[in-house]
Amino acid sequence: MDLNSDLGEGFGAWRLGDDEALLDVVTSANVACGFHAGDPHTMRRACTAAHARGVAIGAQVSYRDLAGFGRRFIDVDPAELADEVLYQIGALEAFARAAGGRVSYVKPHGALYNAVVHHEAQARAVVDGVRAFGDLPVLGLPGSVFLTLAEKAGLVAVREAFADRGYAPDGTLLPRGTEGALLTDTAAVVGRAVQLAERGELVAADGTVIPMPADSLCLHGDTPGAVAHARAVRATLESAGVPLAPFAPPA
Amino acid sequence: MDLNSDLGEGFGAWRLGDDEALLDVVTSANVACGFHAGDPHTMRRACTAAHARGVAIGAQVSYRDLAGFGRRFIDVDPAELADEVLYQIGALEAFARAAGGRVSYVKPHGALYNAVVHHEAQARAVVDGVRAFGDLPVLGLPGSVFLTLAEKAGLVAVREAFADRGYAPDGTLLPRGTEGALLTDTAAVVGRAVQLAERGELVAADGTVIPMPADSLCLHGDTPGAVAHARAVRATLESAGVPLAPFAPPA
Amino acid sequence: MDLNSDLGEGFGAWRLGDDEALLDVVTSANVACGFHAGDPHTMRRACTAAHARGVAIGAQVSYRDLAGFGRRFIDVDPAELADEVLYQIGALEAFARAAGGRVSYVKPHGALYNAVVHHEAQARAVVDGVRAFGDLPVLGLPGSVFLTLAEKAGLVAVREAFADRGYAPDGTLLPRGTEGALLTDTAAVVGRAVQLAERGELVAADGTVIPMPADSLCLHGDTPGAVAHARAVRATLESAGVPLAPFAPPA
Amino acid sequence: MDLNSDLGEGFGAWRLGDDEALLDVVTSANVACGFHAGDPHTMRRACTAAHARGVAIGAQVSYRDLAGFGRRFIDVDPAELADEVLYQIGALEAFARAAGGRVSYVKPHGALYNAVVHHEAQARAVVDGVRAFGDLPVLGLPGSVFLTLAEKAGLVAVREAFADRGYAPDGTLLPRGTEGALLTDTAAVVGRAVQLAERGELVAADGTVIPMPADSLCLHGDTPGAVAHARAVRATLESAGVPLAPFAPPA
Repeated sequence: MDLNSDLGEGFGAWRLGDDEALLDVVTSANVACGFHAGDPHTMRRACTAAHARGVAIGAQVSYRDLAGFGRRFIDVDPAELADEVLYQIGALEAFARAAGGRVSYVKPHGALYNAVVHHEAQARAVVDGVRAFGDLPVLGLPGSVFLTLAEKAGLVAVREAFADRGYAPDGTLLPRGTEGALLTDTAAVVGRAVQLAERGELVAADGTVIPMPADSLCLHGDTPGAVAHARAVRATLESAGVPLAPFAPPA
Repeated sequence: MDLNSDLGEGFGAWRLGDDEALLDVVTSANVACGFHAGDPHTMRRACTAAHARGVAIGAQVSYRDLAGFGRRFIDVDPAELADEVLYQIGALEAFARAAGGRVSYVKPHGALYNAVVHHEAQARAVVDGVRAFGDLPVLGLPGSVFLTLAEKAGLVAVREAFADRGYAPDGTLLPRGTEGALLTDTAAVVGRAVQLAERGELVAADGTVIPMPADSLCLHGDTPGAVAHARAVRATLESAGVPLAPFAPPA
Repeated sequence: MDLNSDLGEGFGAWRLGDDEALLDVVTSANVACGFHAGDPHTMRRACTAAHARGVAIGAQVSYRDLAGFGRRFIDVDPAELADEVLYQIGALEAFARAAGGRVSYVKPHGALYNAVVHHEAQARAVVDGVRAFGDLPVLGLPGSVFLTLAEKAGLVAVREAFADRGYAPDGTLLPRGTEGALLTDTAAVVGRAVQLAERGELVAADGTVIPMPADSLCLHGDTPGAVAHARAVRATLESAGVPLAPFAPPA
Repeated sequence: MDLNSDLGEGFGAWRLGDDEALLDVVTSANVACGFHAGDPHTMRRACTAAHARGVAIGAQVSYRDLAGFGRRFIDVDPAELADEVLYQIGALEAFARAAGGRVSYVKPHGALYNAVVHHEAQARAVVDGVRAFGDLPVLGLPGSVFLTLAEKAGLVAVREAFADRGYAPDGTLLPRGTEGALLTDTAAVVGRAVQLAERGELVAADGTVIPMPADSLCLHGDTPGAVAHARAVRATLESAGVPLAPFAPPA
């Protein structure tokens, strides 16, 4: 099982999240590439720190939206979006190479992540941007248009699940803000992670057990509580003998 | 002799210069990388068009300053500047590769170009940024701290001269806005280019002939007159039998 | 009848449109406020030039999107959008006041203009932003949610028509890119303007005459042809004795 | 005596400093205006909160430099700088008015604050920008070119002193990074504040007592320790019977 988290999401004087803590937990780091967060100096530090720990470096590509932290849908022209994705991967690759590694995968961020679940033109644009760079694995929601198109295009589609998010019985995420959308109890989060890792299933909001075969678990680190959850997940999976490793090995 | 010019200096809806015209004249294209100009879509088109014509692709790296078009000195921390340079080269490399080529050299833009003539910490930062990417040739002013440090660091230092700028007897450029700083007569520009290409010398503002060994001539294309000058320079150098080729061959 | 046009849409080194030419044609200038175009220096010049000619100054408010020129829908949180509108009006007011005038009205730009035709939350946000500044008239599409909400909120809702755009029989604009969406023949544009100004009606794409009571005609100036159209419209309306004046008189 | 502090220095998802804590301490709030920090929504909240407590609202104007938090000198053209200052004041004024108040003064931020101590053209530009808005008081370093030019231009020049910074015997600040540049002991900071408030003097780094007549004390709040210092300064000045009030009363 792979554990991934967002990293390098500061910008200039501003900091966000606890990169150092997360790097001791995860096996894959989704590094911000400057479009929603992540100035060059922060990117360099994130890549250097990740590579030093054997953590895989992924390009966390986003809409160009510093003011909105990439959390607002933007109706970008697909041809331009593909080039924006390519730009971001290229920029991060320079830092990954400087650290002795390489970009091992791509994960869309925030509103773009959500858009490409259904938005075919933008999903195709992200796939096009990735393929223009090279055949990198992509991380996304199981069943999303994005992963489907990525596979058709010959890319490795890595299925992601969330230990701390509520799911509907059909396997979709409960929308943020609705009841049960966020698991806040450590035991619940850890239990979910173990169930996902060992049996590829989870308990949906209505109590039914549904299959959810996942290649990577997404952990959050932007609150002190989230870091504690992340650590507990890792410790428990290790105790349970679940092998933890990047799905895409670093260079 | 190499002929270089700035390209891809639009941004979004805004256009600047006549890229198509210039690509038929130059042998090396300094492509803007998004910090003073150059959105990803424009970078893609510039790289594709340049590579298709056998024109070498260079990274025209700049201070982060869209509002000032990179023409204002910014007192950036050198460590951050090095990473900003690396970011820009990496982003452009992705487009150059997608077009079948690669980034062949680096040229600082605008205020950064002028700063690294004397500003040792920033000059060193640009060199550091280039070396973090790989050992690319750099284009700069003969006698600049930048070229000196680049050579010491093992980079190929390419000396640039200007066919349409006035020079002081000591080989420095006359400051813009002073009398004679800009040659506007086509015959004068062409004559200067021939003299530089054939004999490595030029006539300074006081009439003295000074040595100016140059590996590349910079041509401008942001006005209709400038494009006409550029064409005349190329035509004349070809008639004179001066071999025209990129100093750093495209991939 | 009022004639309005977009102005001040350059940014830094980039220029767009022919402000000087348009200012001799229009009675109201929609000045860009820095979010899709319009750096402070450009805003100052636009306000000074408009006020000197007795042209009313309007705030052309936009999504924060320099890279997309405000032409892409952004799913901004309404509370933030209201504050972004207020920010832009306030900034422009400072330049209008410095020129001896004031901001006389507000017009949403580009994708925001189109969004608030139907998007109730964003339409309400723009109205809220305007009202937080003061009770300025707003310019928009007749029948739009935006104008309806503005009127309910006590603002003067100014109905805008386009002399150079094709209309469906139901009074909506034909989408750009479809046949007949853009009138390119000067006689057609001028004829449409006269019909709108004198009889408050126009000929739709299917040949039916429909009512279109308009308080302001939008003219474009971003191409040489557009400027010629604008001049012809003004000259013809003047010959026809149509009184031309800002709907909201400058200070 | 006035107590001032920087506020509203977040941007989008990023936060900086403890605005709520500071607003209970200071009498004047220097609100960021979007150029180094401060998105519109943050500006709105800062103005509303300040006005509700009777804290004066000042425009903390900056170079356009989100990536550098306004801390890097930029060699901006003075005419453009004046317009950038005017833009920022105008934008903030809209939020201050919406909160029932007005912008009461202007304080340059970061590298601009330092530049206008000596840089005559930029100091004059800031003064010009302020005067284009209206005759607002300006806050700056005693003896700076900025305050001198402001006074000559008829503006009220408010002299600022720092309770937590070391001073040379000639009254200039010790450069950051040198020994004694920052007072970290609460007793020392409080003692300095009392001495400044009651006697208009301070003890320089070499032990000599020098006159430092100040109208406002600058307090910091970007670290937990700084907030504690700020609270201690206020409590001590109140105990000592020093009247605390904005130098420029809020509307």
